Amino acid sequence: MPVPEYCYFPLEAEPAPGFYPVALKIASPKVVHKTDMGGVALNLGNPEELRKAKQKILENLRSHGVEPGAGDGWITTRMYKGIELFFGILQDPVFEKVIVFGAGGVMVELFRDVCYIDSEAGEAEIEKAILRTKISAIFTKGFRGQKYSLRPVIDLILRLQRLDVQELDLNPVLLTEEGKLVIVDARVLPGKSSPGLRPARYEPGIFKPEKTVIVGVSGHAEKAGYALAKNSAGDPDCCYVNPHLAILFGKKIFSRLEDLPFVDTAVLSIPAASLQDTIERLIPRKVKNIIIITAGLKEAGKDERFLQELAERYQLNIIGPNCLGIYANGKNLSFGGEVRRGEINLFSQSGAILAELMDKAVYKNIGFENIVSVGNMADLDFADLIRSYTGPGPVNLYVEGITRGKNLLRAIRGCPCPVNLFKAGKTEAARKAAFSHTGNLSGNYELFAGLVQGAGARLLSDINGLLYPYHFKKVLVITNAGGAGTVISDLIGDKLYALSASEIDRLSEVLPSNWSRNNPIDIIGDALEDRYLQAMEVADGFGADAIYVLVTPQFMTNPEKIAGLFLRKTFRTKMFPVLLGGEMMEKAKTLLRQEKIVFFEELNEAVSFL
Amino acid sequence: MPVPEYCYFPLEAEPAPGFYPVALKIASPKVVHKTDMGGVALNLGNPEELRKAKQKILENLRSHGVEPGAGDGWITTRMYKGIELFFGILQDPVFEKVIVFGAGGVMVELFRDVCYIDSEAGEAEIEKAILRTKISAIFTKGFRGQKYSLRPVIDLILRLQRLDVQELDLNPVLLTEEGKLVIVDARVLPGKSSPGLRPARYEPGIFKPEKTVIVGVSGHAEKAGYALAKNSAGDPDCCYVNPHLAILFGKKIFSRLEDLPFVDTAVLSIPAASLQDTIERLIPRKVKNIIIITAGLKEAGKDERFLQELAERYQLNIIGPNCLGIYANGKNLSFGGEVRRGEINLFSQSGAILAELMDKAVYKNIGFENIVSVGNMADLDFADLIRSYTGPGPVNLYVEGITRGKNLLRAIRGCPCPVNLFKAGKTEAARKAAFSHTGNLSGNYELFAGLVQGAGARLLSDINGLLYPYHFKKVLVITNAGGAGTVISDLIGDKLYALSASEIDRLSEVLPSNWSRNNPIDIIGDALEDRYLQAMEVADGFGADAIYVLVTPQFMTNPEKIAGLFLRKTFRTKMFPVLLGGEMMEKAKTLLRQEKIVFFEELNEAVSFL
Repeated sequence: MPVPEYCYFPLEAEPAPGFYPVALKIASPKVVHKTDMGGVALNLGNPEELRKAKQKILENLRSHGVEPGAGDGWITTRMYKGIELFFGILQDPVFEKVIVFGAGGVMVELFRDVCYIDSEAGEAEIEKAILRTKISAIFTKGFRGQKYSLRPVIDLILRLQRLDVQELDLNPVLLTEEGKLVIVDARVLPGKSSPGLRPARYEPGIFKPEKTVIVGVSGHAEKAGYALAKNSAGDPDCCYVNPHLAILFGKKIFSRLEDLPFVDTAVLSIPAASLQDTIERLIPRKVKNIIIITAGLKEAGKDERFLQELAERYQLNIIGPNCLGIYANGKNLSFGGEVRRGEINLFSQSGAILAELMDKAVYKNIGFENIVSVGNMADLDFADLIRSYTGPGPVNLYVEGITRGKNLLRAIRGCPCPVNLFKAGKTEAARKAAFSHTGNLSGNYELFAGLVQGAGARLLSDINGLLYPYHFKKVLVITNAGGAGTVISDLIGDKLYALSASEIDRLSEVLPSNWSRNNPIDIIGDALEDRYLQAMEVADGFGADAIYVLVTPQFMTNPEKIAGLFLRKTFRTKMFPVLLGGEMMEKAKTLLRQEKIVFFEELNEAVSFL
Repeated sequence: MPVPEYCYFPLEAEPAPGFYPVALKIASPKVVHKTDMGGVALNLGNPEELRKAKQKILENLRSHGVEPGAGDGWITTRMYKGIELFFGILQDPVFEKVIVFGAGGVMVELFRDVCYIDSEAGEAEIEKAILRTKISAIFTKGFRGQKYSLRPVIDLILRLQRLDVQELDLNPVLLTEEGKLVIVDARVLPGKSSPGLRPARYEPGIFKPEKTVIVGVSGHAEKAGYALAKNSAGDPDCCYVNPHLAILFGKKIFSRLEDLPFVDTAVLSIPAASLQDTIERLIPRKVKNIIIITAGLKEAGKDERFLQELAERYQLNIIGPNCLGIYANGKNLSFGGEVRRGEINLFSQSGAILAELMDKAVYKNIGFENIVSVGNMADLDFADLIRSYTGPGPVNLYVEGITRGKNLLRAIRGCPCPVNLFKAGKTEAARKAAFSHTGNLSGNYELFAGLVQGAGARLLSDINGLLYPYHFKKVLVITNAGGAGTVISDLIGDKLYALSASEIDRLSEVLPSNWSRNNPIDIIGDALEDRYLQAMEVADGFGADAIYVLVTPQFMTNPEKIAGLFLRKTFRTKMFPVLLGGEMMEKAKTLLRQEKIVFFEELNEAVSFL
């Protein structure tokens, strides 16, 4: 690796490098963070400046209580000119080895303009990460009349990915006018990272339960075992087990596990103490997937490693414990509410958040392909589930904290369908809350965000975005209010579709002369349903992949009739009513709900998945 | 102002400054942005480096098509060491003279780490603005072992506030190790700014309509004149005018303006062409406040300056045109829906956004002291309204674009009550939409945000925040779901109240042993209404100024009974139900609405005003 010309001098000597300008640095094992302790002076132009700098450094060190002595010394290095960059290696408890790149020198401390790159990221992923830093403008727009090549930066990162050290800070690394990198200062912590975590598993069977059993059904309506039984009451391939109950929802209940037919999937809602025994007694029944509802394990400070051991010993897929259950293959093996079949795969680390989203989905007529409440993830985790899912997607994740981060990144990279992710625990306060809640690591959000986005996931900023299977690139807005159009434009940002001149002309043929001639298409406050329909029909042929139809409660507006357009007509472009208001929108909302048409009640909600 | 030592050399001479290191710059009227064209070289340590730099600069200029000639020359300046800062003066079309401060040199271009300061800001406002930059860490935390004083920075800004030039860039200004500022490079555009805008007015009468008239009432239910009449039907002090109608809502209608009794406030819903004549004929009726509903003026490209002239000539307060009307003194002089009396003053630049918020307010039982739909602001603007309002507040503003920015800043500074502001048109796309909508200037959002926050307004990021009169500093969360607690913690951020050890002990007395022992107070998924009540009663005595009570649809939860607690009990601390879900929350919501209790349906909504 490229380092600058340098000389070493013992502490008592008068440094005489023989070339100027130079940087002077203390070299002492007592001073690790040289810059922080005032142990570095830059740009010294002559012997006089060098002498003064030496004195100043000694004073600085003394003021930090450090007195250099025998064995310490000075290093002078030739000063190069160039843009200061930062390269580093860190060991993260979740993601193991991670590369850091960004603006160096002064700028690291003040602006933290850095990106995080997985040690397994390929070149394209590295380049995308670099371009998320602000300093990357020197490569794209150029800087002070000069445009720099990304190549040496990518090459150095590729070398750091292969370098086997614990930690490394190269700061600054100068990018010279000639486009070369010179490492001016470095700090290294030798050693190796030793992950040894199991790779993610491919277990597609988890999404195909056929013959199932619920162990621990209950006749008490306030128990999870009752709701589990109720949700499977209509499934002839589902057995119930409870030694103290004979019949429930018209089904005969097994009192002994040994009497069960062969099953592929078992749901356990039983005391924690009987989990091990129950699982072992289910093995002869050929069970493969075990969903453990039971709480009070890791999240209550109890040891749950026996579950992973059981999974390994008997080649089981265990979901949970401390979870709400799953929905897969049209079977609702959860104690949540009803589920409509649809497109979304939702894997959630919080049962309550999942229950909330499922309840909203009922209200909004949104359907699911698979739902997994992952619980404590004693065995199967997000990475395993993503690897095991092979459908058209999307896969939407609610994540609080994870382990085995590299597995997650690999699973996202390998997933053929879109992966959308909402991460709770971005702030310190929330991380504390998450910790007491699941006992899972929550970590540095910027690092997490950088890595999962690098691997190809979309990060949602609004949790409601998990409820939708959409991903649009160019959005058109039709509105009866310029103000609402302006507000949603801010939220849509650069995904706002640009109308062509001919599209503007075609709209002008059907709209009043004072329409906005722009997207948002402001069809003016006195628009009735006929004008809405005309605008919708004309805009349907344009290049946008989604059209939001905003309705505000203007005096002459009849929201119900506008909602009615969505019942009567079909459009080629995805078109969504956005009903802004309270009281005056109620009837229109009721109508759309009855007819199972997706609509939005807030601008925020309408853009939550964009 | 402090400038560094420098020498000037004609173009053909070989610069020989006599001291090193130096910076070399081209001095030519053809090269205004020296740095962008490669016309500057820094840190030249000896004559050889200086010679090379000169050649390189000439090459750079040629590559930009500039050939220096007679009259051009070179400037060498002594290089100082220090942190590079930026100081500037700009003229903004809305806010006139504005000071800019931030990180200088390379960092300006890459990080745009700057703050905006009004030329009339006092020292406290200047300091607050500076502290919003990242570079300000050198003053607060110190940098490389040294902490710098803010004093010289504030002093230089105070001097720039008094300096009468059009534009000025001081970049970089070096902050030396001794804490002194040295202006290394400057660019100035001489001249004066000539504002000459009228000062904001104090017109409290606008909020106290007593005797009113509606000109242009209508018998057609789809007309604004009908809704205006309907909203005032019960007011015996309100007259109607329409030459073609005899009676409406049991009121006799005046056909001639001359027959009216004396009125203080007139609402005009008449064609644009008859505005001038109508206003002049109302003068003998002693009218003072005129609210013009009529649209089709400035926003349709028509001249509306005659309204301002009428206002000046007859000392009128004109609201509008192109507006929804006002609500004041308990009188609904708008064609919006019903209004409940309450605490909020809402001034909106969009009638439709206002109609949406009013409609939500009905749904949510939120009340208003004053509402003003400001419309095109031909006469009275936001600044005038804030100056004229003298109540306890808050004043909540929906702003798209303004003129007379200095008036707004002065009004916010002088306002004794909280001013909360949502600004539409943050992005370029939205600014285009806003422009076609109201014809108002929308400008640079960062500049707008910096200045109004500096003057003391709170900027809301969610438009729904305009519906609430609250402003909390320390928020407590009670939840039956850890996940929801984590998500809202992210949104609340550093306003999350920290529980003391004794508060944790008192909660432990009533809660199950596995409660979170932290804020959010996770009372566990099996919490029924009695546990909620116990947590609420204990937490009521703590130091938080608001408590959010989160309810997620867990299997055993009865949202209706938890909602019922808010009906039966009163608490000292503001306490809000947050009902997260869809179908399962419907009955609880209906109950709270009936009992006129404020609640939230989304976490985003609950924090919209924080």
